[in-house]
Amino acid sequence: MISIKAEILYGIHPVAEALAAGRRKIHEIYVSCGKGNQRIEEIIKTSEALNIPVRQHSLQQIQSMTGKEAHQGVAARVNPYPLFSFSGLVADVSSHTRNPFYLLIDHVADPHNLGALLRTALCAGVDGVIIPKDRSAGPSPVVSKTSAGALEHIRLAQVANMVYAISDLKKTGIWITGLDINGTGSLYERDMTGGIGIVIGGEESGIRPLVKKYCDFLSFIPQTGPVSSLNASVAGGVAMYEAFRQRNK
Amino acid sequence: MISIKAEILYGIHPVAEALAAGRRKIHEIYVSCGKGNQRIEEIIKTSEALNIPVRQHSLQQIQSMTGKEAHQGVAARVNPYPLFSFSGLVADVSSHTRNPFYLLIDHVADPHNLGALLRTALCAGVDGVIIPKDRSAGPSPVVSKTSAGALEHIRLAQVANMVYAISDLKKTGIWITGLDINGTGSLYERDMTGGIGIVIGGEESGIRPLVKKYCDFLSFIPQTGPVSSLNASVAGGVAMYEAFRQRNK
Repeated sequence: MISIKAEILYGIHPVAEALAAGRRKIHEIYVSCGKGNQRIEEIIKTSEALNIPVRQHSLQQIQSMTGKEAHQGVAARVNPYPLFSFSGLVADVSSHTRNPFYLLIDHVADPHNLGALLRTALCAGVDGVIIPKDRSAGPSPVVSKTSAGALEHIRLAQVANMVYAISDLKKTGIWITGLDINGTGSLYERDMTGGIGIVIGGEESGIRPLVKKYCDFLSFIPQTGPVSSLNASVAGGVAMYEAFRQRNK
Repeated sequence: MISIKAEILYGIHPVAEALAAGRRKIHEIYVSCGKGNQRIEEIIKTSEALNIPVRQHSLQQIQSMTGKEAHQGVAARVNPYPLFSFSGLVADVSSHTRNPFYLLIDHVADPHNLGALLRTALCAGVDGVIIPKDRSAGPSPVVSKTSAGALEHIRLAQVANMVYAISDLKKTGIWITGLDINGTGSLYERDMTGGIGIVIGGEESGIRPLVKKYCDFLSFIPQTGPVSSLNASVAGGVAMYEAFRQRNK
């Protein structure tokens, strides 16, 4: 019987990274045919070592179970995503580093953009990610897939109110920079070597006005030429990697 | 009668940027209803100023003409995309700058990735983009759309052989850096203030071995954590913006 609380991860990266991260209980793995695909064979081997049942299913069964085309012949029934509470996230990050790097994503609706941002955040050394509860993509199996499994590793909290989260982070000594095309200074002029939070806005309208007001700085990414905006995941990648560069000089 | 050589651009950005760039002849504009949409009203105004006929079509007509959902109620019948020849591109870039910045995209198959890379290239001040003729996304209306119209402005050449293109660029004093996860040095250690070309590989397998061999350097983007790769358009964005940062200090 499938528990009402379980969800189905699909695709090689999400399943492999859920196994590697060990953060959520994995009830069963479903594979269509592992033969000849090294990455699926590794998933089977790891699952067996962890005593997780591996069931053979047809591609059609996996397709109908996941409702997705992009399952690559592998799926897993897992417990819900292990979200942090906001205070739990801050406590856990603080116990790992004295110089935290947060990413705050203000209403990115497209799961592909959220996934790409989480994937980059994990690569760029972001310690914790904060997203709003409402009108935002959330930690779904789709986002696990679009993040290439990065969702399974990153610390993520959903908050009811981004303004409160920003205020609370500021009280802990974090400087908050919002990415905004009308920012008061270039991203490259900001010192991001200390405890920082970068705020990224939604695809269409950017960071909401009230959230902007609570940022310490608004920073723009300099741009040449006649088309005036980068897409959300590229802009986020450029900003996170500028912070990474400064912090690892 | 629609000329056999014409193509149909669709969406607000591609049509607006084709009008702004003035690089290809625009035969007719099709709009479903411009009322209340400021950007479509601007397209109509610009077209009228340029004596380009504007036709009212139903959403259904525009949908069937473009074959795309994402037309936003506007399309244009235009001449084929104005590709540069390789030598024409180099000559034109050289006449504009003594310090060229090239992007070479080795077999990116997904038009969304190509579009995102072109959009970033235009914002980051890339002077010319080179793509292979075969097994690569090309300058289609889809790419004009996914590039948010950046395709209409950027200098783009398609070449039969990327290795010859790299060799020829090197002869003009350009240093070629390939992005490669097994590169010999970090991207942040490379001096990119002179004439440079950045090579980006395809989504799955990166830069092809022979193309790699012809690069002066292979550079990696440093990455932390267990998931080891950025997506192609984010990696390209990070690399182009690191060059941009160095070149505009």
